[in-house]
Amino acid sequence: MSTSDDEAVLASNKAFYTAFEALDAAAMDAVWSSSAPVTCIHPGWAPVTGRDRVLDSWSGIFRGTDRIRFELNDIRTFISGDHAWVILMEEIEAHQAGQLVRAYAITTNIFVREEAGWKMVHHHAGPTPPPSKQPKASVLH
Amino acid sequence: MSTSDDEAVLASNKAFYTAFEALDAAAMDAVWSSSAPVTCIHPGWAPVTGRDRVLDSWSGIFRGTDRIRFELNDIRTFISGDHAWVILMEEIEAHQAGQLVRAYAITTNIFVREEAGWKMVHHHAGPTPPPSKQPKASVLH
Repeated sequence: MSTSDDEAVLASNKAFYTAFEALDAAAMDAVWSSSAPVTCIHPGWAPVTGRDRVLDSWSGIFRGTDRIRFELNDIRTFISGDHAWVILMEEIEAHQAGQLVRAYAITTNIFVREEAGWKMVHHHAGPTPPPSKQPKASVLH
Repeated sequence: MSTSDDEAVLASNKAFYTAFEALDAAAMDAVWSSSAPVTCIHPGWAPVTGRDRVLDSWSGIFRGTDRIRFELNDIRTFISGDHAWVILMEEIEAHQAGQLVRAYAITTNIFVREEAGWKMVHHHAGPTPPPSKQPKASVLH
């Protein structure tokens, strides 16, 4: 692992959230791998698998969203050969159907190194309590 | 991707849940990579990073658990070079401090191919509603 790998993975991770905030389906398409399997777990959804279905799911979310902003915290990058994963906390403020929605998610983003850079192969965002309300440890695993 | 790779990844995924049900810290240790970064997101916890801290977290969970059983559903395996991820639904029945706890989680498990087989590098389990109560789509991503 090198610092430049870390920076390149973080740049791809940032491109994902930039595409999401811009509600830009073409930019989101460019974030995802075209050669490896592609899967996505949106908060509260069943998993979405396959590139076309994953990108369709983003287009649907973009159509239903007027505005969305992310504050990303505790971003950490882990590199293993030609694959990497980023774990982070999302603080989300969204305007959807005229309503303001605030939510928190804990997220794993997986990337693969391709000629064109690090491309996303999996996004798993799960709902989580606000940081102040998170227990130090859960009784359940 | 070959069928035998799929089967080998599924065997490593199964070994993880077998170690968990057995509350066996040595078996859990053997599931995880010794060469790649190791990280874990337990439901409701902040992320745990580093092999020693991850294995300590499992030992703590095992000490606090009398008995735990998993029903795993919708298990799907995705292979990209020497890395793989499994996504699945966990239905959990646990006895902790004399109480029966039922819970559901949606999970991503990441593995790396090593000489000794596919080893876990990341486990992300997030709480999720029972399958019958999951919405078809969420307003939020």
